[in-house]
Amino acid sequence: MLSSLLNISHPIIQAPMALADSPLLATTVSQSGGLGSLGAALFSPAEIRAKIREIRSLTDKPFAINLFAPTPHQTYSKKEIHEALRRLNRFREKLHIPTLQEIDIQPSASFEEKLSVVLEEKVPVFSFTFGILPSSTIAKIKSHGITVIGTATTVREAKQLESHGVDAIVAQGYEAGGHRGTDLQMTAIEDALIGTIVLVPQVVDAVNIPVIASGGIMDARGIVAAIALGAAGVQLGTAFLACPESAIPDAHRQRLLNSSEESSRLTNVFTGRMARSLKNAFLLDMIENATPVLDYPIQSALVKDIRDIAKAKNNPDYMSLWAGQGSRLCQAISAKEVMAKLIHESENIDARIR
Amino acid sequence: MLSSLLNISHPIIQAPMALADSPLLATTVSQSGGLGSLGAALFSPAEIRAKIREIRSLTDKPFAINLFAPTPHQTYSKKEIHEALRRLNRFREKLHIPTLQEIDIQPSASFEEKLSVVLEEKVPVFSFTFGILPSSTIAKIKSHGITVIGTATTVREAKQLESHGVDAIVAQGYEAGGHRGTDLQMTAIEDALIGTIVLVPQVVDAVNIPVIASGGIMDARGIVAAIALGAAGVQLGTAFLACPESAIPDAHRQRLLNSSEESSRLTNVFTGRMARSLKNAFLLDMIENATPVLDYPIQSALVKDIRDIAKAKNNPDYMSLWAGQGSRLCQAISAKEVMAKLIHESENIDARIR
Repeated sequence: MLSSLLNISHPIIQAPMALADSPLLATTVSQSGGLGSLGAALFSPAEIRAKIREIRSLTDKPFAINLFAPTPHQTYSKKEIHEALRRLNRFREKLHIPTLQEIDIQPSASFEEKLSVVLEEKVPVFSFTFGILPSSTIAKIKSHGITVIGTATTVREAKQLESHGVDAIVAQGYEAGGHRGTDLQMTAIEDALIGTIVLVPQVVDAVNIPVIASGGIMDARGIVAAIALGAAGVQLGTAFLACPESAIPDAHRQRLLNSSEESSRLTNVFTGRMARSLKNAFLLDMIENATPVLDYPIQSALVKDIRDIAKAKNNPDYMSLWAGQGSRLCQAISAKEVMAKLIHESENIDARIR
Repeated sequence: MLSSLLNISHPIIQAPMALADSPLLATTVSQSGGLGSLGAALFSPAEIRAKIREIRSLTDKPFAINLFAPTPHQTYSKKEIHEALRRLNRFREKLHIPTLQEIDIQPSASFEEKLSVVLEEKVPVFSFTFGILPSSTIAKIKSHGITVIGTATTVREAKQLESHGVDAIVAQGYEAGGHRGTDLQMTAIEDALIGTIVLVPQVVDAVNIPVIASGGIMDARGIVAAIALGAAGVQLGTAFLACPESAIPDAHRQRLLNSSEESSRLTNVFTGRMARSLKNAFLLDMIENATPVLDYPIQSALVKDIRDIAKAKNNPDYMSLWAGQGSRLCQAISAKEVMAKLIHESENIDARIR
């Protein structure tokens, strides 16, 4: 049912991972019979158009473009921004980059401007995270012949997404790497940290559209488990992160390959929104010193220079190291090989547990 | 393999739930072909002996007795205890019970005294939580012909348990209700909150003895999922909590039946050790006011009168409401019916996902 909805051979979706995925990763997954995704939220409209065209130049298979649904955030005075920058200057000193007293936070293009490109390009699938788009927006996207997938971390969010007209729902469990796809703000987010094994059946019971399990699914064992739980398909992010096709710095890749199930933590220190990253010096220092964190996307802007220099220097201690709790199971093989193993081994497990 | 090790028909274990389970619950599960457990840690040696004999009078099938492995805890001065009691007097006033200035904390019988009864009675299966018993203790238990099951929340704990000689390991995921079966103390416990769907395969990869999945498994979907993940069997607690055979107050049962996946929270406010309970007035008040919590088992002793009066008055707002994240799937049917459904529906799902 999900495969026919998405026009793919295997109900395996490569999760959108803004700045960590790539057109090559997405097309490799799509060429292998799954659905590749590109997290486009942090690109300009022009970049989004270029990336979509790049994907189309590489494959004629379906793919998904993902954007962040707009969510409200606190605004801050110049003084508050100054204070926040000052608190972060200890990291700049460590990295030998200029300390900052103020920054010019440029508003990025609006969600509507980015969505316009998605509509104009008539991408096959559009997925979104962070919020619940209004029914009118979802209807408009669907009127362009685009299949729409929303992201839920609770039954409440899943029911709301269904009532707003999405075609399928990603049920994102607590184990997932990167950002929590919830509309809840920080204070309430504890209530949206539900483990995949128990989130999926509860969402499946509550809605009548296909549910895609995500969070902690790293191999064929996880896929067969998700199907047993009632999912129509799966979405895997971390499982593709160590592939050469991903866009992460090599230092991030190495940390993934040397991680354990105890290596990650949920934190808002990198962007202002809750996300799962491997622990590193920046994360632990921020937590230990209880350094205040501003709202998304302001926090992101405040630490941008720190993360940028860490990336440039391939220094894993000051970049975000997005990872799910299954990162120990990452493999440094191509996305094509990951897909082949997922498909082949799922069939073997099906046979074994009969 | 697990079924033959435990001499049962179906690899389904009813989780030990100290004071919430009962000899009747355990024997019903064992009579149905699974393994019933009795959490005996909070009983005196004489009570443990009486409960074991009660179980034996009801069934000749195997069953498990569970104890808490001893763990170090902080000791407190008379003044610190006085301060802690004073901070809790707001609850006593609300419940119209005498405020307390001091209490006499009676040391309970030692682990060794309790274990002696288990050995003398030669119970079929012994399981333990909270810590890693030394190899010598495990060897001694096994020398009585008793099968030994340890509890792990991380790969590290699982490997240590295996090296100490246990026969099987319960891999307890983040979703599980009640206490975390980890040896980690509060500050490090965040690292031992791994979702079941990703904990099980990592533990299975790391050890060569049977792994029993627990945490968030509420029905046959969860059982088939756990087997796909590589588990040899499953342990379910919350799934049996709403059964009339459990020993929880009716108010707790009603809260379970009216809960959602967002209802529970991990907290140490009831006992001083991290455990998952449904949110209630006591839990939220303690968190909101950041009331300091003393170590297990001191915290337990400090709030005993509050929890006791709540139980006596069937007031769900001041008792612990242990529950996993799947509590919404609880059913008010007998344990015999739960077992019949689990067994029957597992076969149907196996057939469906072929």
